[in-house]
Amino acid sequence: MASLFECIPNISEGRRDDVVAAIRDAALRRGPGVLLLDETSDRDHNRSVLTFLGDGAALVSAMEAMVGAALERIDLREHQGAHPRLGAVDVIPFVPIREATTADAVALAQELGRRVGSTYGVPVFLYEDAATSETRRNLATIRQGEFEGLAAKMREPGWKPDFGPEAPHPSAGATVVGARAPLVAYNINLGTSDLSVADRIAKAIRHISGGYRFVKAMGVKLEARNQVQVSINMTNFEKTPLHRVFETVRSEAERHGVPVVGSEIVGLVPQGALVAAATHYLRLEADPTNQVLENKLLSIAFEAQRKEGE
Amino acid sequence: MASLFECIPNISEGRRDDVVAAIRDAALRRGPGVLLLDETSDRDHNRSVLTFLGDGAALVSAMEAMVGAALERIDLREHQGAHPRLGAVDVIPFVPIREATTADAVALAQELGRRVGSTYGVPVFLYEDAATSETRRNLATIRQGEFEGLAAKMREPGWKPDFGPEAPHPSAGATVVGARAPLVAYNINLGTSDLSVADRIAKAIRHISGGYRFVKAMGVKLEARNQVQVSINMTNFEKTPLHRVFETVRSEAERHGVPVVGSEIVGLVPQGALVAAATHYLRLEADPTNQVLENKLLSIAFEAQRKEGE
Repeated sequence: MASLFECIPNISEGRRDDVVAAIRDAALRRGPGVLLLDETSDRDHNRSVLTFLGDGAALVSAMEAMVGAALERIDLREHQGAHPRLGAVDVIPFVPIREATTADAVALAQELGRRVGSTYGVPVFLYEDAATSETRRNLATIRQGEFEGLAAKMREPGWKPDFGPEAPHPSAGATVVGARAPLVAYNINLGTSDLSVADRIAKAIRHISGGYRFVKAMGVKLEARNQVQVSINMTNFEKTPLHRVFETVRSEAERHGVPVVGSEIVGLVPQGALVAAATHYLRLEADPTNQVLENKLLSIAFEAQRKEGE
Repeated sequence: MASLFECIPNISEGRRDDVVAAIRDAALRRGPGVLLLDETSDRDHNRSVLTFLGDGAALVSAMEAMVGAALERIDLREHQGAHPRLGAVDVIPFVPIREATTADAVALAQELGRRVGSTYGVPVFLYEDAATSETRRNLATIRQGEFEGLAAKMREPGWKPDFGPEAPHPSAGATVVGARAPLVAYNINLGTSDLSVADRIAKAIRHISGGYRFVKAMGVKLEARNQVQVSINMTNFEKTPLHRVFETVRSEAERHGVPVVGSEIVGLVPQGALVAAATHYLRLEADPTNQVLENKLLSIAFEAQRKEGE
């Protein structure tokens, strides 16, 4: 089937519903091959987060159209909100979901960045896996100073954008475009009320203190259950899979005489994260992804939708 | 999302490609909501097996149209082939794939049976989970005597059809319609060349000799690998899940001092069979099916296709 990406533009408008709708529709009209999975507006943040799923080329075209629609309707000089922002379209990450790598997502980010810079004269900074320097990897660093401080920041050495003009767009500021692996929020519950056990296990598995490369973790108290939890963000489930982290948590808990009583996935999860666990524990000699019946349907339905648009 | 079924009509024509195409297209034209997953014709058997996937109501309408198209083009009085057959459309099983139960599939079989009987005057026998008596559960029993012996068989007591006239259709015989759970072919490879170990384990897990209710199994020698295999048909993976059978095979093999070296799934597998294994081993407290990102896409794509047809 076609490779599949998620794209999650963050727009600096969360109050005028008609404006958000017009911007979202501009992306969808550029479909087919682009589906809206979720749309969330926050009035306090004055910001909307749209989640699109689709094939790479279609998503890039949809995002290009969407940026154009946002530029016509959002003037950051009049924008106020609790959330930090640098641009009318503030940030656009691409996430590989299936039959796609982070490198593929980086290529999409570069192509979109090039188009936004040249078509609309909006400077573009690439971030996370698409970053062209270590200082630009972190979104917060790029966004420091926000829209109001952007003109001064871009005059400093080291802040030439990756695409587009070397000064902010007057009303739209700059846009940060990037690529990252999908996140999986995975929590493991322990049969004890002793938070120090969860804390010690979190420390054992998280990258920062010597654990797995793509794990962030902390101990959390579950008051209602009188239990504690190792709360985990898996930032790359292909390189650090769920089952490996689960087995390490189980082994570390055992050493404290504490049982693993259950676990939970919070939010959405790519099918691949679960299929990898089944593959591991059932000792499957081959990845069964292409044998999953629903994936045939996905493939056919997706193909039909693409043809329709040709 | 919509509930999803597989439907696998077996047609008594495997030589005239244009006839098979016309019959298949009659089903697809009645879509939307019906997708062709696979089509296999066998010239020796003079028989074709079509695999459709779709929502229940759409599949029943598609099958009704398909039976009509087959009746116009196939005359069993002139049909010869190696495979036993009773009708122009010989057998149509419905299989629940997701968000559907065997009972739902039985209801589809009954509705299709009623329509085929009344619209086309073709007698219909219900089989497997849709069977109205134990003697009709087994397809081979119903088909015994084939088309040529059908008129005489239907005059015997106990062979009144479930729907339609009490004598065969002159050119189309009778059609057998039914419901069954999806099959998963799952093989577990053992680190020994001793076939008797695989045989003993197969005996331990299969229903007929005291094992799991929905397991058929036998020992097989893998000459090229110098290993043996427990070759398994899982006839209902929801009631007898893969991970339970895997753990039993592992435990029995251990008792013989033999390791499980790997396993394989042959052919297609519903996503649910793999997600159930991940849920079990990761000790997930809730079924993550509705959190799988691809299932959102499946749902949206399917819904779009249905709307298009309205």
